Amino acid sequence: SQYCSQCAAPITRRIPPGDNRVRDLCESCGAVHYQNPRTVVGTLPVWNNKILLCLRAIEPRARTWTLPAGFMELAETTGEGALRETREEAGVEVELGSLYTVIDVPHVDQIHVYFLAHANTGDVDPGPESLDARYYDISEIPWDNLSFRSVSSTLRHYISDVEKGHFETRYYSLPPAR
Amino acid sequence: SQYCSQCAAPITRRIPPGDNRVRDLCESCGAVHYQNPRTVVGTLPVWNNKILLCLRAIEPRARTWTLPAGFMELAETTGEGALRETREEAGVEVELGSLYTVIDVPHVDQIHVYFLAHANTGDVDPGPESLDARYYDISEIPWDNLSFRSVSSTLRHYISDVEKGHFETRYYSLPPAR
Ligand SMILES: [Zn+2]
Ligand SMILES: [Zn+2]
Repeated sequence: SQYCSQCAAPITRRIPPGDNRVRDLCESCGAVHYQNPRTVVGTLPVWNNKILLCLRAIEPRARTWTLPAGFMELAETTGEGALRETREEAGVEVELGSLYTVIDVPHVDQIHVYFLAHANTGDVDPGPESLDARYYDISEIPWDNLSFRSVSSTLRHYISDVEKGHFETRYYSLPPAR
Repeated sequence: SQYCSQCAAPITRRIPPGDNRVRDLCESCGAVHYQNPRTVVGTLPVWNNKILLCLRAIEPRARTWTLPAGFMELAETTGEGALRETREEAGVEVELGSLYTVIDVPHVDQIHVYFLAHANTGDVDPGPESLDARYYDISEIPWDNLSFRSVSSTLRHYISDVEKGHFETRYYSLPPAR
């Protein structure tokens, strides 16, 4: 940022006293403008052994398939945010299952969090951020046209866990793509 | 915020076109200044069946005992942040164990994430944010003087899991305190 959001004075970038990192500082009013990673929340919705994917209408990665997910908002829980994104992107109301993947993506300052979810019908009603939404059989997942590695890795873990018949929360990090 | 951090014009609060929430908008340069929940990361360090707690030197909750934890920084993973906070607050290097609690605290726009951790020695070296750091036997935990409900609930789950001999990742939300 260029200007202080509290007093409009120009921002200085330096290490504040007692800190050990460069911050956006205001020399005029003394405000320190911290920046923090953002959390993306989503679901892996299952109906009739099929998995719901959405075709992205917007950048980044327009026209690729994703699990429904988006940035967590203020005043909501991660689970509430995951349900909201599923509703907004796919028009689907799901029952939230267990916390499934927690994925660090530090090169873009994000954490991606996916919950297992259960849908009672195969109905979809894609919202403005989606060109399409449909349930894919595990054998039909469009692996070559998925949106993000957090999506593909979550799907791979799910398919592996379906085979094992046992699901547990997984935590891992994604390095920058080669 | 009062002023645009990109152009210093005054901020307007309204719902942008195509959005469904009030945002901090700049009518001058068009910037939308989103706000997102922040993530607090920490560890539950165990050495010799004892648990490391730190006596907070700073507000909020100065002079109460906490697990080492703090706000996640840009460009780090949750695990790296948890190790950093443990080093900064207690002067302790731990081996990171499994992801243990993921706790929504929506009334303060936070997610708290704790990892199990293992210490190889009982040495501590409290940093400037701590008045003290010490390993507590499970029977000696200062329940009446803990810092946050995310700390006390994580400790309660841990003690229960020690008795069961089985640890798994837990996800839950904390409502506002009465
Ligand atoms: Zn200022
Ligand atoms: Zn502006």
